[in-house]
Amino acid sequence: MRQSLLASKTLKETPKDADNISAALLLRGGFMDKLASGIYSYLPLGLRVLRKIETIIRDEMNAIGGQEVLLPVLHPIENWKTTGRDEMDVLYHIKAGSGKDFVLGATHEEIISPLAKKLIFSYRDLPLYLYQIQNKFRDEPRAKAGLLRGREFLMKDLYSFHANQEDLDEYYKKVTEAYFNIFNRIGLGRETFLTYASGGSFSKYSHEFQTACESGEDTIYFCNKCRVAVNKEIIEEQKICPECGGSELETKKSIEVGNIFKLGTKFSVPFDLNYLDEKGGKKDVVMGCYGIGPSRALGTIVELYHDERGIIWPESIAPFTTHLIALGESEDVRAKAEDIYKELVAKGIDVLFDDRDEMAGIKFADSDLLGIPYRVIVSEKALKENGVGLKKRSEKEEIIVSFDEVISKVK
Amino acid sequence: MRQSLLASKTLKETPKDADNISAALLLRGGFMDKLASGIYSYLPLGLRVLRKIETIIRDEMNAIGGQEVLLPVLHPIENWKTTGRDEMDVLYHIKAGSGKDFVLGATHEEIISPLAKKLIFSYRDLPLYLYQIQNKFRDEPRAKAGLLRGREFLMKDLYSFHANQEDLDEYYKKVTEAYFNIFNRIGLGRETFLTYASGGSFSKYSHEFQTACESGEDTIYFCNKCRVAVNKEIIEEQKICPECGGSELETKKSIEVGNIFKLGTKFSVPFDLNYLDEKGGKKDVVMGCYGIGPSRALGTIVELYHDERGIIWPESIAPFTTHLIALGESEDVRAKAEDIYKELVAKGIDVLFDDRDEMAGIKFADSDLLGIPYRVIVSEKALKENGVGLKKRSEKEEIIVSFDEVISKVK
Repeated sequence: MRQSLLASKTLKETPKDADNISAALLLRGGFMDKLASGIYSYLPLGLRVLRKIETIIRDEMNAIGGQEVLLPVLHPIENWKTTGRDEMDVLYHIKAGSGKDFVLGATHEEIISPLAKKLIFSYRDLPLYLYQIQNKFRDEPRAKAGLLRGREFLMKDLYSFHANQEDLDEYYKKVTEAYFNIFNRIGLGRETFLTYASGGSFSKYSHEFQTACESGEDTIYFCNKCRVAVNKEIIEEQKICPECGGSELETKKSIEVGNIFKLGTKFSVPFDLNYLDEKGGKKDVVMGCYGIGPSRALGTIVELYHDERGIIWPESIAPFTTHLIALGESEDVRAKAEDIYKELVAKGIDVLFDDRDEMAGIKFADSDLLGIPYRVIVSEKALKENGVGLKKRSEKEEIIVSFDEVISKVK
Repeated sequence: MRQSLLASKTLKETPKDADNISAALLLRGGFMDKLASGIYSYLPLGLRVLRKIETIIRDEMNAIGGQEVLLPVLHPIENWKTTGRDEMDVLYHIKAGSGKDFVLGATHEEIISPLAKKLIFSYRDLPLYLYQIQNKFRDEPRAKAGLLRGREFLMKDLYSFHANQEDLDEYYKKVTEAYFNIFNRIGLGRETFLTYASGGSFSKYSHEFQTACESGEDTIYFCNKCRVAVNKEIIEEQKICPECGGSELETKKSIEVGNIFKLGTKFSVPFDLNYLDEKGGKKDVVMGCYGIGPSRALGTIVELYHDERGIIWPESIAPFTTHLIALGESEDVRAKAEDIYKELVAKGIDVLFDDRDEMAGIKFADSDLLGIPYRVIVSEKALKENGVGLKKRSEKEEIIVSFDEVISKVK
């Protein structure tokens, strides 16, 4: 992609209504635009990152047998009356002229449960794992955390359906592993901890995945021995690590990037979701639900990976892997940069080519702000040495490499 | 994918609330589920088709310089008050507890125009082409046409921004070509005609893309000489072909599968979307908008491609290209079918493997209903001839081919 054509403008100043550092950098870098509190438009740069996160999530969901579906945003209010959750504060309500009243999907148990009833009849139809990546809507009284708490936000929600609790327990472990695979792959692995949370009436605990981060709004209590954490709600009850019983827990600020929950029969009972077992007996389906917000993950990645000059994207989810920059107005530089651009594109490398008529200082500042992992600099100085400059966003040193080398070094 | 695991149940009977033949077949085949009038959940089979349609659309939008963005569903009512369109009947309104009033996006001119204002400053920023694939919401008084007229539906909407009318005119032609490429690639090309429609105040005509189809709700007036059509609104005014002036127009029932519109400055004026030209003069940006509904296209494809037994998917957008069916309970058949399945998967072929314990009659009926282009049948009879059966969904004849041949014949 040529930067001269890219639908994106970098801003020198942080917009006044940026909620936090990730929102500030994503707005300044032209990754997204704020429409209203907690509601953002994704520009091409931001959407590229979001799609890469989604692709990794899909990959890991498919690997554990998840089948992708797409459920509606408009939910008949009756579905929510069935569970009594129509009174939830965060629901957006719609009185439609055409007669039917709707709420906007804040979560999808009320839709997936009656849908599953059409797919599950006998034990042979179980287990079943359905997931989607869909917008969720929550009428948040305060939505001042950029992508970390939105009114409209993307969610990957997986629902599992089982013949019994043991089968749910086993799958719950598999999802836990898949979630860590996801967090590892998108760059959040090292700082993300399994965190014990309240389990409702069907299991002692549920689990959150909390990413330790100074700017987080949550607090976790971390056991250095077990590498797990406990959320605030649980710590107030028991004050010890649920794994080792130890009481030396370290307080960390954190962001909740995922959660998994054993629903048991909470939704299968009201929606009459049952199955015939091997002996022909009617049994309630046992359910689990598992969420990760791709947009919140995006915000969290920026909270963790930035410096004073801008974002430092992990390679796996960077909008482009290579930022090719032509410096100065020399014809030789222009021609060489064009050649390298075409070669990188031909090799299938995601390259953003800064072909703009801007000063070196502006190009470098923008490049630091955008945070693309590899920077390739074509300049008269480097051309004299028969090479180009190569610098990683995460490192300070620029090295001069030959034209052949640069193609093999960037991903 | 193993059919024994697929989240889908075929129905023998057409659901009572199926609106039309495409909805009936898509519901019976387990491609989707109806949540409410005009509101559907996509099951894995349906989502696979939808995603293939989307991929083709993206490909053609990118080829004409389109850059993908993702705009919100929740629109502040103020944006719609700016154009006076907040009074439109089809808007869903939300009174939010948190104070702000929203409408659900029925279209996105009210969002993209102020966004473009942040990207366009001078003539150097033009032209600009932004598109998205996003849900739209319309409070349709009657929504009884399956995917053909939904309350919640997917739309690809492209918006173009130009320095002047000539530039818009030129791009409008490019989009017209891109649209025909899309319709050709998804199987609607032969029956889809450029159709003259009302142009508003900025151009004499806009254009619809109408697919001739007996079950369509629209009527077009088709000129056999020019291969273009005129919509009802226009024909009532002029009664002649706008291209050749001829009056021998054939009436056809049709479905509107796309539309393109020269907006001129209709939205740039209220949103103060202007730019500085080469001489430093302030000019209004000239806009165009271009829509295709992937979900409506999906419904239209099924309206066109089916017989009394089920759907007949065009290969380009079929949920799977090959339906591998194992017949009977013989161990040899099972083992051979497993081998072929693994080989097809290894070759990257989209294969659905009917590994269920069902009678041949049920498997064939389901296969006809699902409409996958190539059917590979592993049976004792064919094994005796050292081969497998191969049948195209669109043809009657089954032929016996060798194991090697079958891999090369299916896509």
